[in-house]
Amino acid sequence: MPVKWMPLLLLLLQMTCCFRSGNCGKVLVWPMEYSHWLNLKIILDELAQRGHEVTVLRPSASIFLDPQKSPDLKFESFPTSLSKDDLDEVFLLFVNKWIYEIPRDSGLSHSPLLQNVCERYSDSYLSLCKDTVSNKQLMKKLQKSKFDVLFSDAIAPCGELTTLAETIGKAEMWLIRSYWDLEFPRPTLPNVEYVGGLHCKPANPLPKEMEDFVQSSGEHGVVVFSLGSMVSNMTEEKANTIAWALAQIPQKVLWRFDGKTPDTLGPNTRIFKWLPQNDLLGHPKTKVFVTHGGANGIYEAIHHGIPMVGIPLFAEQHDNVAHMVAKGAAVSLDFHTMTSSDLLNALKEVINNPFYKKNVMWLSTIHHDQPMKPLDRAAFWIEFVMRHKGAKHLKPLAYNLTWYQYHSLDVIGFLLACVAAIAFFTIKCCLFVYRFFVKKGKE
Amino acid sequence: MPVKWMPLLLLLLQMTCCFRSGNCGKVLVWPMEYSHWLNLKIILDELAQRGHEVTVLRPSASIFLDPQKSPDLKFESFPTSLSKDDLDEVFLLFVNKWIYEIPRDSGLSHSPLLQNVCERYSDSYLSLCKDTVSNKQLMKKLQKSKFDVLFSDAIAPCGELTTLAETIGKAEMWLIRSYWDLEFPRPTLPNVEYVGGLHCKPANPLPKEMEDFVQSSGEHGVVVFSLGSMVSNMTEEKANTIAWALAQIPQKVLWRFDGKTPDTLGPNTRIFKWLPQNDLLGHPKTKVFVTHGGANGIYEAIHHGIPMVGIPLFAEQHDNVAHMVAKGAAVSLDFHTMTSSDLLNALKEVINNPFYKKNVMWLSTIHHDQPMKPLDRAAFWIEFVMRHKGAKHLKPLAYNLTWYQYHSLDVIGFLLACVAAIAFFTIKCCLFVYRFFVKKGKE
Repeated sequence: MPVKWMPLLLLLLQMTCCFRSGNCGKVLVWPMEYSHWLNLKIILDELAQRGHEVTVLRPSASIFLDPQKSPDLKFESFPTSLSKDDLDEVFLLFVNKWIYEIPRDSGLSHSPLLQNVCERYSDSYLSLCKDTVSNKQLMKKLQKSKFDVLFSDAIAPCGELTTLAETIGKAEMWLIRSYWDLEFPRPTLPNVEYVGGLHCKPANPLPKEMEDFVQSSGEHGVVVFSLGSMVSNMTEEKANTIAWALAQIPQKVLWRFDGKTPDTLGPNTRIFKWLPQNDLLGHPKTKVFVTHGGANGIYEAIHHGIPMVGIPLFAEQHDNVAHMVAKGAAVSLDFHTMTSSDLLNALKEVINNPFYKKNVMWLSTIHHDQPMKPLDRAAFWIEFVMRHKGAKHLKPLAYNLTWYQYHSLDVIGFLLACVAAIAFFTIKCCLFVYRFFVKKGKE
Repeated sequence: MPVKWMPLLLLLLQMTCCFRSGNCGKVLVWPMEYSHWLNLKIILDELAQRGHEVTVLRPSASIFLDPQKSPDLKFESFPTSLSKDDLDEVFLLFVNKWIYEIPRDSGLSHSPLLQNVCERYSDSYLSLCKDTVSNKQLMKKLQKSKFDVLFSDAIAPCGELTTLAETIGKAEMWLIRSYWDLEFPRPTLPNVEYVGGLHCKPANPLPKEMEDFVQSSGEHGVVVFSLGSMVSNMTEEKANTIAWALAQIPQKVLWRFDGKTPDTLGPNTRIFKWLPQNDLLGHPKTKVFVTHGGANGIYEAIHHGIPMVGIPLFAEQHDNVAHMVAKGAAVSLDFHTMTSSDLLNALKEVINNPFYKKNVMWLSTIHHDQPMKPLDRAAFWIEFVMRHKGAKHLKPLAYNLTWYQYHSLDVIGFLLACVAAIAFFTIKCCLFVYRFFVKKGKE
């Protein structure tokens, strides 16, 4: 399970691409659902704005891909044996098993529970893949269209049909949904561009009722609480633990929650099924963001300079929150073991200690002070791959080597064979000379 | 001798820097002579244009630093015990020993000849350093000036006063005079920016007489021949070897040469003490550039898409030419062993085989098709370091480790000590138990 690859977007040159000299290119997209699609969509809308023809492959089972919400994109829909509900169920099962049922310290790769769910997830995607490539009409149409580039989310199987290692080697350019505000500096290859936070934008005004609620917080300000779109079955007990802690602070709280209203809910807390998260994080009254640590939310908090209380749930969220803690912009809590007072103390710490605000403001400064905006860089490199049929000059030649060449095993093997041959002949010679003299001595 | 570091420009945050909130900063420069100064000057002029106050430290022994040619820069001159002629002699001795007297296959680090010259070079620079830091008046003035950033050429000793490894760790940002058109892709750190070719610009018209000569070449075009500014004592024999080969081609030749006119000089060849190299390489009649492979010349050839015959002499020139050969944009010759026919064949090959033109045009495309111009990127990151007192978020934390921490020797040492202690006590216990029972057995 490529957990470390979660925040990746992959840009892959199609083998059969045709290049036209004009600025206008044809982009084929193999997308992913949920928050991944939201990020991809930002780039696709930008490409469409720049005049490119963007075609998104859309299985009929798709959950998030709504052509009506993306009027600038073309959607190539095709029937699948899975239904929308089937796919939704597989996703939610996958995520909920990961959050609730896997002992967190057992190590992902050794968890038989996750393996079972992974297999079901893989089987479902394999069926989607089969439905795609065995659809002759669709394949013929795609081939005729002569796309310039395939743009694919690396987390979505089927974007490449072959292994992950091969995909890494084949992709002309990698766009990573991260940057050095979130990451720690480390060596990176020239065909990797860090475009984290490309979806960030200034806040829009809040709906009137919500704005009134926010303003009613006075000088205390508000807390924004959201554990994302994929957590559905929080226990009543857990909801009460959270609600009780939130009720103790002088701030007003906006809580994204889709369950039974907890008994301990305080008068300062309002529950919403959906929050305009970016607009809230950009509001001057917002003091702290309680988040599960998804890359999109973390980047919105960095963009607007809001310190965080991180409650990571699954995938790369643990990593993201650990980074924010290490950079002094967040306090971390364990979703499974946290008590009301843990949450309360964490909120008080982040709200009252200026340390966190100062650090997240520095991350915000880094995020804004780049030579070029991440979205422009993403668009530039996609266009570059289209213009020049790839970006070979940025790809390490190591990708062309087999594994035994990469580790120099062929050279080592040859040298060992030489040594063995020399040793063999030397011993043979010695034996021959010895026998010769022994024989002579006997005569 | 840090040969691999030759094409580097170093940007170092001064420890005592003071940051002002406005856009205007104060830059202190520790420069280098010859072609290194030409590159540095491009960046300094750009910074001055952007409104920054740029002060260049100028030893009285300086060869290339002419305040009259840089009206936008401030020069802080100070007396040195070395004269200009002393320094010039040391440089030329250094380079000429390297080119002519060091057996090329002996390996630089093992050459006692180079070591001697290196020592003289180091001694001269040490004397310059001493003259600088022991000049109390100068130091007081510099301290008072409260510079925001120290910008230094890493090849020039004294820019950092401490070792090279330490300098690498201390520098906030590295600007490398190279890019993926010249280099092969490899991992790189986030605080390293590849700004090769930042000095490149469109060609200006040639002087009338030179333009007439170039035009007289008709459809054959011209060859531009220059081995740079530091080769002074080419033998008469070598000059004749070159002149004879040049006389055999139908092209007109412009040869930068500062010695006795060779007897074999053909009517198609003109000798010049200095050439407007960039204007010639950007001229539509130019077919090939014969170069020693200095980074500046190679980048001008890439910028204008002119294939090369490389005759590397010293330092990173061998590397540069080898890269151009590997990328199919040049043919390489050995300065010491090449014959007239070698040079003639190389010229014919590069002029007549479209392979080289095609490849150098691709390098030119890569060079021009970047998200941001190299000079703008260089200026951005210098300004970033001034604005934010550094760029810590781009620096790997490994720089903060000592060598034994970096290699985890402290951890390994501790674990070994634990194992040793456990082994010691286990053996002691066994011995004790054994003796106890033996004693009991004897009783």
